[in-house]
Amino acid sequence: MIVPIHLENSGVVEYDVTIDKLPKLHFDTKVAVVTNPTVSALHLDTLLNQIDAKELSVITVPDGEEYKTLDTVVNILDELFINKLDRKSILIAFGGGVVGDMTGFTASLYQRGIQFIQIPTTLLSQVDASVGGKTGVNNKFGKNLIGAFYQPKGVYIDTTFLDTLPQREFSAGVAEIIKIAVMFDNEYFNYLEKADLSDKKVLNEVIARCVELKANVVNQDEKEAGIRAVLNYGHTFGHVIENETKYKKYLHGEAVAIGMVMANVLANILGLITQNDMNRVKNLLIKHNLPIDYHINNVEEFYNKFFLDKKSANDKIKFILPHGIGNFNISNNIDKSIIIKALNQFSRIDKK
Amino acid sequence: MIVPIHLENSGVVEYDVTIDKLPKLHFDTKVAVVTNPTVSALHLDTLLNQIDAKELSVITVPDGEEYKTLDTVVNILDELFINKLDRKSILIAFGGGVVGDMTGFTASLYQRGIQFIQIPTTLLSQVDASVGGKTGVNNKFGKNLIGAFYQPKGVYIDTTFLDTLPQREFSAGVAEIIKIAVMFDNEYFNYLEKADLSDKKVLNEVIARCVELKANVVNQDEKEAGIRAVLNYGHTFGHVIENETKYKKYLHGEAVAIGMVMANVLANILGLITQNDMNRVKNLLIKHNLPIDYHINNVEEFYNKFFLDKKSANDKIKFILPHGIGNFNISNNIDKSIIIKALNQFSRIDKK
Repeated sequence: MIVPIHLENSGVVEYDVTIDKLPKLHFDTKVAVVTNPTVSALHLDTLLNQIDAKELSVITVPDGEEYKTLDTVVNILDELFINKLDRKSILIAFGGGVVGDMTGFTASLYQRGIQFIQIPTTLLSQVDASVGGKTGVNNKFGKNLIGAFYQPKGVYIDTTFLDTLPQREFSAGVAEIIKIAVMFDNEYFNYLEKADLSDKKVLNEVIARCVELKANVVNQDEKEAGIRAVLNYGHTFGHVIENETKYKKYLHGEAVAIGMVMANVLANILGLITQNDMNRVKNLLIKHNLPIDYHINNVEEFYNKFFLDKKSANDKIKFILPHGIGNFNISNNIDKSIIIKALNQFSRIDKK
Repeated sequence: MIVPIHLENSGVVEYDVTIDKLPKLHFDTKVAVVTNPTVSALHLDTLLNQIDAKELSVITVPDGEEYKTLDTVVNILDELFINKLDRKSILIAFGGGVVGDMTGFTASLYQRGIQFIQIPTTLLSQVDASVGGKTGVNNKFGKNLIGAFYQPKGVYIDTTFLDTLPQREFSAGVAEIIKIAVMFDNEYFNYLEKADLSDKKVLNEVIARCVELKANVVNQDEKEAGIRAVLNYGHTFGHVIENETKYKKYLHGEAVAIGMVMANVLANILGLITQNDMNRVKNLLIKHNLPIDYHINNVEEFYNKFFLDKKSANDKIKFILPHGIGNFNISNNIDKSIIIKALNQFSRIDKK
């Protein structure tokens, strides 16, 4: 599948997303693979067997969102300089979203930019992070606050890498699939309610449709000036949850799952979604073993953390809400009292 | 003057370069000015009088090439987060090339990119660094090795800021002007031989022509896949000189001046430039108090340092040489023995 990305200022870059067995990859340049110990132990041999390059190095970074920092990127950059990669060299991101985001960001920085390829090994990165060119790292102020829009040269999705993925991480990936369905495609959501994702053929179809829907959005708005913000459904809440739990308690997709439930509560108060549709989303999340609840200790504190989120231009919070299932609503003028009312539903100790 | 920059993948971004008194600047967003103590003490009041913004902060970074590091950029980023700049906020680079390169780079990184404006206060940054979108920092491996191609929203050149510029820094700026003339425009070079740059009217004309010639190059090749490399005349040698002297002995323009003399010696050996034209370049450099000599301690070591330079794809060194005055030659297949022969002319202790 060809994904055309309309770059700001009228350019278009196209890259190929294959959803199939990893093909043979030939390069007449130096190549550096960036991966983590977990993926490396399970699949590095498989990858290296497929690569033919002028010179090949492997750079291993620690596994986990807490290492998605500028320090780790600097370490990768240092390795590239030590291995004397040049401007024609290519980076390969081989791992999940953390590896992909950091590798893409490193590629954007090295000598002002070299090419990179995404070979995502988690469901979350296959359906979300690997397509669209968002790269970056977290810092003490929040998630993904430093980075670049930088498109890969290609994305290779091979679902056999998912065979070794822990069930919990697989589920976290499903959260992003559900997100896309709720925002953009009612039929796709209906299909998901019945789909058996342990069937590889079904899974490949589900991934293909998800990538297609996402690419269609990125395509219209690479730099998130408008519609791309819709992909942040569940994320405005989810980022605060991740921040409060120091990126340790929840996987990103899990925080997004809770975030979607929170966004739905807000949407329900505003009359945008029925109780019945809210329950359908909840049930689909539960079916995939995703968390749907979170205890907010301090509602006022939680609320204030929205304001660091980079989507909040000029001190207004932009909420991405469902409008039924398959449509979205963007609101940046919701009264604080209404938001607090929604948050309060997650703060009562006796609630559960 | 409108500078159109053809972005890779077919986009075009246009920005306005004014060469005139600094106009009144109105912003309906948050603005952060990045400057250094020297420029701040001399001209910050003048600048602030011209700016009208929703919220204005001033970030001061240490003065000097040795502070053009990722650490300084991280400090600027931290200030932006503390001041809660959002995606619509604007950075203003107010200073020389170091401030401009770091501010542009910071703008590219902050929340994956916000807009920035260049208000260059040195001749070098007015004629060179502020136009073309090269941003970045140095690291332990060399100069400008980490960065981004990131175009400013506008460039305001006001030569009254040069009234307080030390003569030595003014001369360093003239080196880049001479570079452009030698590479692209014989008539411009002839004009420079007679021009009195202490005359503001002449100076404005000289700057305008220089910016025009540079923009014309960037315009054809934003990311230095081809002709933009010509702007590195004198830089391949100059970077090694700066590296060997730890960025302390020479200003960038001074290292480039010596680098041009070295490139000319190599070009002369290859029959590309006559002794007479070499002398004309030397004399113009001398007229502007620029250094034309350097003692190479270890020719082999000097040679090896070329290979870290990012313009050297696949272990070949690309030399930008003059072909007479007003034309260039790009060579990436020069025998090591010939390069060594040229370098040897700068290594003999008894030479001076």
